[in-house]
Amino acid sequence: MPISLSELALRTGATVAGDGTVVVSRVATLESAGPGSIAFLANPRYRPQLAGTRASAVIVAPEMAAHTALPKLVGREPYAIYAKAASILHPAAPAVPGIHPSAVVDPGARVAASAAVGPNAVVGAGAVVGERARIGAGCVIGAGVAIGDDVTLHANVTIYDGCTVGPRTMLHSGVVIGGDGFGMAEEGGRWIKIPQVGRVVIGADVEIGANTTIDRGAIDDTIVEDDVKLDNLIQIGHNCRIGAHTAIAACAGIAGSTRIGRNCKIGGAAMLNGHIELCDGVVVSPGTGIMRSIDRPGVYSGFWPGLPHGEWKRIVLEAQGLRELAARVRRLGHAIADEGGDDQGGGRP
Amino acid sequence: MPISLSELALRTGATVAGDGTVVVSRVATLESAGPGSIAFLANPRYRPQLAGTRASAVIVAPEMAAHTALPKLVGREPYAIYAKAASILHPAAPAVPGIHPSAVVDPGARVAASAAVGPNAVVGAGAVVGERARIGAGCVIGAGVAIGDDVTLHANVTIYDGCTVGPRTMLHSGVVIGGDGFGMAEEGGRWIKIPQVGRVVIGADVEIGANTTIDRGAIDDTIVEDDVKLDNLIQIGHNCRIGAHTAIAACAGIAGSTRIGRNCKIGGAAMLNGHIELCDGVVVSPGTGIMRSIDRPGVYSGFWPGLPHGEWKRIVLEAQGLRELAARVRRLGHAIADEGGDDQGGGRP
Amino acid sequence: MPISLSELALRTGATVAGDGTVVVSRVATLESAGPGSIAFLANPRYRPQLAGTRASAVIVAPEMAAHTALPKLVGREPYAIYAKAASILHPAAPAVPGIHPSAVVDPGARVAASAAVGPNAVVGAGAVVGERARIGAGCVIGAGVAIGDDVTLHANVTIYDGCTVGPRTMLHSGVVIGGDGFGMAEEGGRWIKIPQVGRVVIGADVEIGANTTIDRGAIDDTIVEDDVKLDNLIQIGHNCRIGAHTAIAACAGIAGSTRIGRNCKIGGAAMLNGHIELCDGVVVSPGTGIMRSIDRPGVYSGFWPGLPHGEWKRIVLEAQGLRELAARVRRLGHAIADEGGDDQGGGRP
Repeated sequence: MPISLSELALRTGATVAGDGTVVVSRVATLESAGPGSIAFLANPRYRPQLAGTRASAVIVAPEMAAHTALPKLVGREPYAIYAKAASILHPAAPAVPGIHPSAVVDPGARVAASAAVGPNAVVGAGAVVGERARIGAGCVIGAGVAIGDDVTLHANVTIYDGCTVGPRTMLHSGVVIGGDGFGMAEEGGRWIKIPQVGRVVIGADVEIGANTTIDRGAIDDTIVEDDVKLDNLIQIGHNCRIGAHTAIAACAGIAGSTRIGRNCKIGGAAMLNGHIELCDGVVVSPGTGIMRSIDRPGVYSGFWPGLPHGEWKRIVLEAQGLRELAARVRRLGHAIADEGGDDQGGGRP
Repeated sequence: MPISLSELALRTGATVAGDGTVVVSRVATLESAGPGSIAFLANPRYRPQLAGTRASAVIVAPEMAAHTALPKLVGREPYAIYAKAASILHPAAPAVPGIHPSAVVDPGARVAASAAVGPNAVVGAGAVVGERARIGAGCVIGAGVAIGDDVTLHANVTIYDGCTVGPRTMLHSGVVIGGDGFGMAEEGGRWIKIPQVGRVVIGADVEIGANTTIDRGAIDDTIVEDDVKLDNLIQIGHNCRIGAHTAIAACAGIAGSTRIGRNCKIGGAAMLNGHIELCDGVVVSPGTGIMRSIDRPGVYSGFWPGLPHGEWKRIVLEAQGLRELAARVRRLGHAIADEGGDDQGGGRP
Repeated sequence: MPISLSELALRTGATVAGDGTVVVSRVATLESAGPGSIAFLANPRYRPQLAGTRASAVIVAPEMAAHTALPKLVGREPYAIYAKAASILHPAAPAVPGIHPSAVVDPGARVAASAAVGPNAVVGAGAVVGERARIGAGCVIGAGVAIGDDVTLHANVTIYDGCTVGPRTMLHSGVVIGGDGFGMAEEGGRWIKIPQVGRVVIGADVEIGANTTIDRGAIDDTIVEDDVKLDNLIQIGHNCRIGAHTAIAACAGIAGSTRIGRNCKIGGAAMLNGHIELCDGVVVSPGTGIMRSIDRPGVYSGFWPGLPHGEWKRIVLEAQGLRELAARVRRLGHAIADEGGDDQGGGRP
């Protein structure tokens, strides 16, 4: 998909500096780029690589423009320009419309003529598959599922009965949408399963990473709003609501009935307790567990950085000895008071 | 599945208060209920919603019965009554017996005539599928696997050769049973794989959530006893034994050869070390790592709740400075001793 | 596969002590062994079981040889000898060459005549499947994928377009190789997807556990070197490089662009930050989060062992009160200084 720098500027909203007739056909890193590539500098730590790059053009912020003589796209958000340029240079292959002969599509399903259903995929009764949607090989789409226009399901995705997926959403392989929530009542030391009769409702422009699971609601629905981005191996419990534009990194777990606001960022391996609510704009650091609702935007953390084993062990032991240390300090205070000293700092004469 | 309140009382063991001829056909939350729904109040925090609900009937504990004039089911365990009522009102659709023509069933497999084998499922040589069992689309059942009566495998479950699944057990999509345990010996900086020749043996009435993995034993079997409930994305290592009625929440990991007792509850993202043993009745809090065996029932925790980033950072720095603080306290003690003071609280005159 | 002890010694590099004509046909634990079994003692804590075992032969270290009269294999690394013996006694069944009639193999794919492609597997255009490779039932192999000789893909593995898998590598069920990395740019509160145009390149003799996911590179490739061993439910982000002979236990997560050296051992549920580098020979304890690069081999930890709930809660509260404790110690220091005391331990006369 070769394209001139000027054309690329037009389509990404960037400004050209230098020779706009230069043609590029792929993105590359500053380090690995060769002729025909366009590279980008978004993180200042890679600036030293700018001088030596063999790219045909680069994407930079205005303050970096003077540091290279190469033809370039300039804009305040070079990473966003790169994202757009990469999409233009590396478009997804268009779906080849049609239902593969090995696919099993229920006669009661409605598949758009422009959609592609891959080998050995299964589409249940009453399911609807939208225009230009792609259902990858081995996917299983339950009865009554609604798949929007331009949706991409990579291979081996499973969607249980009755769930819905909004337009332009992409689900990666191994994703499971609509499994039963973890709901059961205890009676006399045994468990009674509670049927999970809600659905999962996924908005538009969502992306869900490989092997992530989203459980259907117990009664009402589990909801993933528009433009939510979920990484791999994430668990979303039943009746959660994930607000629009929120991104969650890999290995995170969200327990049931929790609501996350809009434009939140949840770090990898973070864990959110059930039945809590995070307001819009909350950032949760990686590896952090959130036990209570949060009603102010900001960054929340609860993560111990790993240390050489001996140092770490010392901290654990010291923390376990804190009661003794505090007692000793109290005794010192008493001793000083007996001597006429005073440990009430504020009251010292 | 419309049913009168009286009939529902009979089948759930609850008592009717008010008009028992009222007919309900589905469960709902207090908030979302409409006519024809039965809602429940199990958590006192939702009591304010009781007054305004539009449900046709409710399920409550005796002490709450006076707070609503609606027809109701009354019992000491309203959540268990709700569980039973929901199962009656929302029964799983019965399996439609038969083997889908696209399924590949080895001639040496024995599938009950009342069982349902879905599209593109694969059943290996010597496998046995019990009465009324459902094998979802895309499932792969290895050679010699035994699937009990009334088992439900949702779509795209994988069971390796030789494993067994007890009656009424339900496996959700993406579950992998019987993959090789993580067993290898190190020799000269290289790994030698150890064949994993044990099986996975799963009891009756077990439920296993989406994308959970249970490894086969190295030599002896990995065992999941009756009525165990596993949520999504859980890892059970080789040769573990999970005791009956134990429930484990999502994202937990149990390392190899660990034994968990009966009626334990393991929180989400909890991690258990290998080769340890938990007695019956242990509760592990979410996000907690258990490194040693536990021989007393009770609650065990090891989880730092997330805080605003600045507060958290301060705690981490203070903990890393504990050695210095302790040294300072020691010096203070010496200083006081030099002055005639005494930091041995108990021994002060 | 019955074999004499002498022959087994020859093939494992061990020494026979006692009757080398004894024939064994399977491995067993000391406890569960019966006639015809060979058991092993690698962990001294199981030594008491040596006396009572009913095994026909045992594998022991030289210093244990005197503790049993049974015929035995003796060597300095009994666990490695056991690994080799188990492989000999329990060889994987050979692939039955051929493409199952229900598999969908693109006419442009090249599958070796000695390879086995299972029921309902899908092999894309331009893919290459090597000699004696096994593609399990339900696997989906994308276009242009290269599968080396003697590779084993268990059922329901997914490999996206263009990725490569080296010889003798084994991928377990539910593994997803080559899903898009979690790459997007933020612009005005919305996300712009960044096409992920790199591949995943997996070396020789690698093993990857069930439901583990490895994302393709954003621009350059994600690389897993030879003899890497990954357990179940692990996430490897885009553009990571995992060095040869490194082993990673279940539920670990490696964020994007991180490089792990050779012969590292990463514990279960450990989490590595993105864009960092671990040198060769690093050991990360279970449940530990590593935020920064590590340039010295050794053990790194950051894990709080779970405690009875009351003890744990006390530690959390004490840690949250550390600022107050430190302030109190400062005030005590001032008080003593006012009295003529001195909290500068080193400077005391």
